[in-house]
Order: sequence, then C-alpha cells, then structure tokens
Amino acid sequence: MSAKRRKLGDMEPEEFRREGHRLVDWIADYMGSVELYPVLSRVKPGQIAAALPETAPERGEPFEKILADVDRVLMPGITHWNHPGFFAYFAITGSGPGVLADFLSSALNVQAMLWRTSPSATELEEVVLGWLRDLLGLPEAFEGVIYDTASISTVHALAAAREAVVPDVRTLGLAQRADVPRLRVYCSEHAHSSVDKAVILLGMGHEALRRIDCDDEFRMIPDALAAALVEDTANGWLPVAVVATVGTTSTTSVDPVRDIVEVARPYNVWVHVDAAYAGAAAMVPGFEATLDGADGADSLVVNPHKWLFTPFDLSVLYCRRMDAIRKAFALTPDYLETVEAAPVRNLMDTGVQLGRRFRSLKLWAVLRYFGAKGIRERLAEHIRLARLFAEWVDASDGFTRVAPVPFSVVCFRADADDPFNERLLDAVNAGGEVFLSHTRLQDRFTLRLAVGNLRTTEAHVARAWTILQETALQLPSPVEP
Amino acid sequence: MSAKRRKLGDMEPEEFRREGHRLVDWIADYMGSVELYPVLSRVKPGQIAAALPETAPERGEPFEKILADVDRVLMPGITHWNHPGFFAYFAITGSGPGVLADFLSSALNVQAMLWRTSPSATELEEVVLGWLRDLLGLPEAFEGVIYDTASISTVHALAAAREAVVPDVRTLGLAQRADVPRLRVYCSEHAHSSVDKAVILLGMGHEALRRIDCDDEFRMIPDALAAALVEDTANGWLPVAVVATVGTTSTTSVDPVRDIVEVARPYNVWVHVDAAYAGAAAMVPGFEATLDGADGADSLVVNPHKWLFTPFDLSVLYCRRMDAIRKAFALTPDYLETVEAAPVRNLMDTGVQLGRRFRSLKLWAVLRYFGAKGIRERLAEHIRLARLFAEWVDASDGFTRVAPVPFSVVCFRADADDPFNERLLDAVNAGGEVFLSHTRLQDRFTLRLAVGNLRTTEAHVARAWTILQETALQLPSPVEP
Repeated sequence: MSAKRRKLGDMEPEEFRREGHRLVDWIADYMGSVELYPVLSRVKPGQIAAALPETAPERGEPFEKILADVDRVLMPGITHWNHPGFFAYFAITGSGPGVLADFLSSALNVQAMLWRTSPSATELEEVVLGWLRDLLGLPEAFEGVIYDTASISTVHALAAAREAVVPDVRTLGLAQRADVPRLRVYCSEHAHSSVDKAVILLGMGHEALRRIDCDDEFRMIPDALAAALVEDTANGWLPVAVVATVGTTSTTSVDPVRDIVEVARPYNVWVHVDAAYAGAAAMVPGFEATLDGADGADSLVVNPHKWLFTPFDLSVLYCRRMDAIRKAFALTPDYLETVEAAPVRNLMDTGVQLGRRFRSLKLWAVLRYFGAKGIRERLAEHIRLARLFAEWVDASDGFTRVAPVPFSVVCFRADADDPFNERLLDAVNAGGEVFLSHTRLQDRFTLRLAVGNLRTTEAHVARAWTILQETALQLPSPVEP
Repeated sequence: MSAKRRKLGDMEPEEFRREGHRLVDWIADYMGSVELYPVLSRVKPGQIAAALPETAPERGEPFEKILADVDRVLMPGITHWNHPGFFAYFAITGSGPGVLADFLSSALNVQAMLWRTSPSATELEEVVLGWLRDLLGLPEAFEGVIYDTASISTVHALAAAREAVVPDVRTLGLAQRADVPRLRVYCSEHAHSSVDKAVILLGMGHEALRRIDCDDEFRMIPDALAAALVEDTANGWLPVAVVATVGTTSTTSVDPVRDIVEVARPYNVWVHVDAAYAGAAAMVPGFEATLDGADGADSLVVNPHKWLFTPFDLSVLYCRRMDAIRKAFALTPDYLETVEAAPVRNLMDTGVQLGRRFRSLKLWAVLRYFGAKGIRERLAEHIRLARLFAEWVDASDGFTRVAPVPFSVVCFRADADDPFNERLLDAVNAGGEVFLSHTRLQDRFTLRLAVGNLRTTEAHVARAWTILQETALQLPSPVEP
C-alpha cells in the first residue's frame, strides 16, 4: 500500500488509541469534577458562535487541538445535565456503562435496518426489550421496538391508530374522502406537547386533539373522557386514539389508565400510554401499580434515556398490535430485498426511519451493570429524595407544595406572586449550584424540582432547599398572593 | 456521604477511567483488525438471541464481563460496516475523530431542545452547518438543522411543503375539507422509499406519490414531470412538492434539478432535493455541478453519516423556508417557556422531535480533523476507485456495466440470467472478504459495488473484482440471458 493511499484513510488505530486514552481521561476527570461547573451555562446568546471560525479549516488539525477547543470554547456553553444539582425538566443520567456502550455503538457503526446488516443489533434489541418488558410487568403480548425519542414513538403509535381506524389510509390518505369524518385524539390537559405535534404531523390537524379535563391532582377524568366521546361521535367525529399519561411533564400525575381503557373500549379507539418518564418506576417495590391497566392498552412508550440511566437517545415503544405499524409503514424497495435461512425481523418495517443506530447495546449494558436490584434501589432512592424535599416544603413557612409527588418530581412555589417566583427561580439558577425549571399550574407560575441524576445525593437536595430559602429571603418585597 | 448513598450512584470516575481505557484498547484493536472478520455476519436467524439470557440479571455485573460478552456473543452477529470490503448499500465510515466526538457527546449527554439547555450544542450546530453549506456551495439563504436520518429530514421538508400549500393544515388537517383537493408529491421512479413513507405518514396517502419516468440514465425526465403536473392539475389534484434526487439509491443517478425547479416554479410547489448520499461530492474539484440548480430548491438533505465520515446518525436538512417548518411545528408548552438576554434559536421549534442529541460535535470533529482538503481528497479517491472498477467491468468479457458511474457506486451484472447473478452475489458474500448488495434495473437483478469506507484501498477493490470473476467461473452453468 503506498504512503499516499495510506494517508487518505481514517485516523490510524494507534492514533485512535492515543487520542482515545486522552479522551477517556478527559471524561473521567469531567465526571469527577462536574460539580465544579455552574449547572446552567452562563454564556450570552451568540457568544459561542462568535468564538468559532466562520469557515471549516482547509487543512486537517490534530484531535488534541479539537479537544482543547472543547475545553476553551464549548465547555462554557454547556449546561451540565450530568451535574448532581441538575433538577430541571426531567433530570437524567448518561451513566458510565451506558456511555461506554454508546461509544462502542459509535465505533461499530452498524446500521440495523435489516436483520442481515447486523443480526446482533436486531436480536439484542428484541432480547433486551423482553428483559425490560418483564421488569416493567408488561405482558408478553407487547412487542417492543426502539426509536430515538418519545416524540417519534408516539407518532408511530398514533399512525398505527390511524391505520387501524381509517380504511386504506396508507393508500388513500385523508383528503377528499367522503367516508372519513374528522378524526379525534384525546389526551389530558397535562399531556405532553409531542401529542400535539404528532397529530399535526399525521395530517389530522391540531383541532383533532381534544384535551380532557383533569381532577385536582392533574389526572384525566374518565367521565369527562366518556362525555367527550359521546359528544364527538354524536357530532360526527371519529375517535382514533386516547393518550393516557403515566407521569405527566408538569407534575408527574398518573392518568387512571385502567378506567380510560374501559371508557375507550366500546369506541374501538387505540389507547396509547405515555409513560416516557415514569414507566421505569413500575420496577420499584411498592410502585408496581404505576402501570396498572396498561396491559389493556394498545401501546406504551417508556424512555430509558429519561429515568433509566441510558444516555440520550433511546425511547422504547411497546405495542400489542405491532402489525398495525408494519401495515402502515412496511415497504421494501428492490435494493433492500433479502432472503434469509429462516424468517427474520427487519426493523426497518416498524418505522418511518430506515436507518437506525445500534441503540440496544447501551440499554443492555445499563441493565447488566446495575442489575435489576441496583436499578430498583436507585429509582427508589430518587423517589425518597423527592419526597424528603416535599416534606421540607410542606413543613416550611414560606413555600407551598402544589401537586402530589407520585415519583421524583416536586412542584411548589414561594408564598408570593408570580413575578416573585420567577425572580426567585432566575436568582437560584444564576447561582450555578442548582438548576430548577418551572411550569404553570392552575395558571400560576410553579417551581419544579426533578430528581433523576445518579450523582444526586441527599446533600444536593438539601443544598437546593437551603439555596431556595436563602434566596427567597434576599429577594426584595415578596408579595403575598 | 454515607457508603450506602455512594453505592447507589453511577460508576465511579476511576472505574470509568479503567473501563474506558480497556474499551479504547478494544476498539483500537478492532479497528486495526477489522479485515480479519467476515464482512457479512454468518450467524443463523435466532442464534444471537438464543445465546442471551431470557431475563435481566438481578445483581449488577462488572463492565469487563459485559465487554467479554460483546466478544463472545455479539461479535459473530455483527456485519462489519467498518470493513474495507464493505461495498453494500452505501458504504459509510464512522471515522476515528467522529467516533471520539460521538463518545464525548454521549458523555456530556446534553439535550439541546432549548438554547439554554446547552448553548454550545445549539450554536455549534449553526456554525458547523454554515461550514458545510459553504463547502457544498449552497447559498446563505439555506438555514440548516440536524436530524437523525434522511427519512426524518424528508418528512420535515414535505410537512413544510404541505404547510405552505394547504391553508391552515396545522390546525384543520386534511380530512373533511371541501377546500383541499387530493394532494400530489412527485419523485422519480428511482427516488428513495423514505419519500413513500413520508407521504404515508403525512396523511396524503401513498397514491399521492406520483413517480415520474426516467431517461435511460435513470434521471427524472423534466418533460414527463411537466406533463404530469398538467394532467394532475387538470384532474383536480393539488401539487405539493417535487423531490429531486441527487444520487439515487440504486445507481446514484442525478435528477436535473435546475430543469425540475423550472418546471415546478409555475405551480408553486416545494422542491426538495434528496442529496443524502451524493451531496458531499459537491465539494470535490470537478464535481461542483453535483448540486447544480439546488440553489433554486426549497430544501435539501445531505447525510454526513453516509459519505462524510461521520458515525451514524446525522442528517442535515438545509431549507430556504425554515419558517414553514417552524410554522408547522413550533409549539411551546408552559414548562419550556424561556426568556433569554437576546433572541435565541430553540431547536425544538424546527422539529417533531423534542429531544435531540449533541450531534454537531461529531461533524465538527470530522471537518476539523480531516480539513476541507483532506475530505475532498478522500471523496475524490472513492470516486477514482469506483471508476477504476467500472473500467475493469467494461473491459471484461463476462460482465456488463448497466449504469453510469457519476460517483462511487458501480452497477453491473454477470452476462447470465438473474438466478445466476443472485447465486453469484450469495457466493461472493459468503466468502467473507467482501459484501456487495443488489438492486433491480430494467427489471433485471443487478449487482452494486459501493465505495465509501475510508479503509478501502485500491487493493480491496481489486480483490472484489478478482473474487467476482473467480466465483463466476466456479458457479455451475451460467446461462446467457
């Protein structure tokens, strides 16, 4: 092989080894010192872009220099989801074993569209999703498939629902059909925005989404769903699906799935359970009821990248009627036709996305490294920490809790008006030790503390509480609401 | 911190360091020895699954043991996309710098839905897509966004087209609207199946997709498109979009984008260019015309995970009317409302997927490590190798080339009937040194050799040619077609 040809190849294995070792040390150091960074990045809009060249370099640069620029240019603009003081949105963990397995997945770089394009990727996905299904207590009738995000899992669930309800929708679509009335999808007031986007994407229109009232604990009221179904069908709407949420984004409230399934059954609508965040809790002793009734649903999404220590992205859709998804999307062009020695599952048939990363590897590594017991204990600890924080809020003078704490998220507010709470949140987050987010509940600005990072200990939660109290005292003029 | 609490955390940084170093060595050894594996996995369907336990372990296991099982159980089921003899589908490269940067992305585990959830992820994406846009010769009017796959990029392009053409489609959808006729999307006979899936997903129905005839070099015939538009509009169809392909999957043919834009303009339809594979070639001196006319299109997809040395997954959509995508999908629930010091771009507004990995990091690393010059040279070398192979085919007695070679893919067949060519492909792939795929052209089984891996040298292409010739001679009874 000529020097010229060689020069044109990839980074040499020995260079990869050297740079890889350097990067492992960088990451290990980072993981050991992440608490030293401000959780929420302090850069100004445009600051990172301004520090980067406007054009790609003409000549190649050593990887070492690129890594140095990560430190110099990019790290100030990182909001540290790994920080034990990250309490915003849903706190997540890219755990060590998950990160290492994801590294291996990048290195293998297989594309599991067909069984033959890497049998291990297809079969490990099936096996690991079987493990997870058992851990969650779901029946075997649920076939699993991995997508990137819950948004995409829910798109597929609702596409399958549309396929099941609208005759020939795959071929004929929705427009100009006398036989297809306006379609309806139901979810609670507190369901995730991904349901809105899915309905829009699928051509049903945002008006197709009817949000059902919740009780005072933010759970869908089955009677309200029943009334909506009666009203809509009387008015000529065709109910397609109900999305029940187990662990809503704002408060982690749990819709009564069993009752919803009962209400929905006579209408033959698809019931999809969005358990993206809270589904994992079903593994925890005492929390088996988390997915109560889900065995009667048609599909369920749970995101190991949320509360199951798996690096982003990995969302799992379990479906009792995966054939509806296949019916909607299976389509094999000539260049992807294969014949194997026995029937195989080609994962491209269960998705809009043809290409797929070897994602099951990281979930497999996480489940094995921590073990079922280790995962249960960690989830239980997160729930314990959130409840402890809730107790502190409840026992306090200046703060009020505004929602139940079924899992690891606490919603609360300072006993003052909205602007005060907003200023409080900004001041707390500006401190750099913790990062909380917010929502609106009963039309009032509400603070949210979400526990979910494996590095978070009781000390961090206690520190968050101290900071909140101290900051509230320092802010000017709290106004009683 | 008590021992108990500590035990509940993540893998310790020092353990991560130790296991990370072990894994880097494993990957470096693998990269140095990938040629020793059979390219196409030889396992039987079900073999990998059968070698795995049926349930997750109760107790955690050391990472070392997991890695040992990668070797023992999974590696036999890997089809090696990294192998220099991988000539199937589109050959790709998860290059060293790309893999390392993707590792860093997994470790940082930031989720770039909002600017504030990691400013660097948002701003680096903008900067790097600016670099790539310049390298491709696209005008600045094209705003870029990263998705996972071309399938999803095309879904967004066609959703934007629908948004632009159908009044209030976001709100009202497609069903039961007297003001919305049946919709049409156009592409060539050789366009990718992702266009079919997108049209189905969007509720237009598969019949909405009208495939336009190609010339004898597999390029869409603009006059045929023009005739279809005339016919369809006369018959009450509403044209929504035309998808022109630059580098079709079977033959890498290039639709005449400039002419297609001209034909489409009077109809106000969206022109989307699928340059997922071949777009990168526009960087190569002498190949600037690859994207000729694309400046007049509305959107264009190019996949750095295909022919730009970036590990899977990373697809880029460039769009001149990104506001149509925002109009279709921007939607901010209370819990994601943010106010920053200056206007920022929140990437969740340009997509169906809320969550997004820090993907720009790996593209940035690839562009910097190789440099524009290094990338051009590597792409040019792949083109050279494919043309060399084409010359050998052309000069041979027993084989015939059946399509032009605009880039790095050669379509050819043995001068015999289809069953012989199928047996030939199976026998060649069974040998383990090379892996080719197939397609059908003019209704005949056709072999495809795709160059695209950085480890592939002239010697590997020559070896593929030798194996093909020798295997053809050994097979029983070739029948002249």
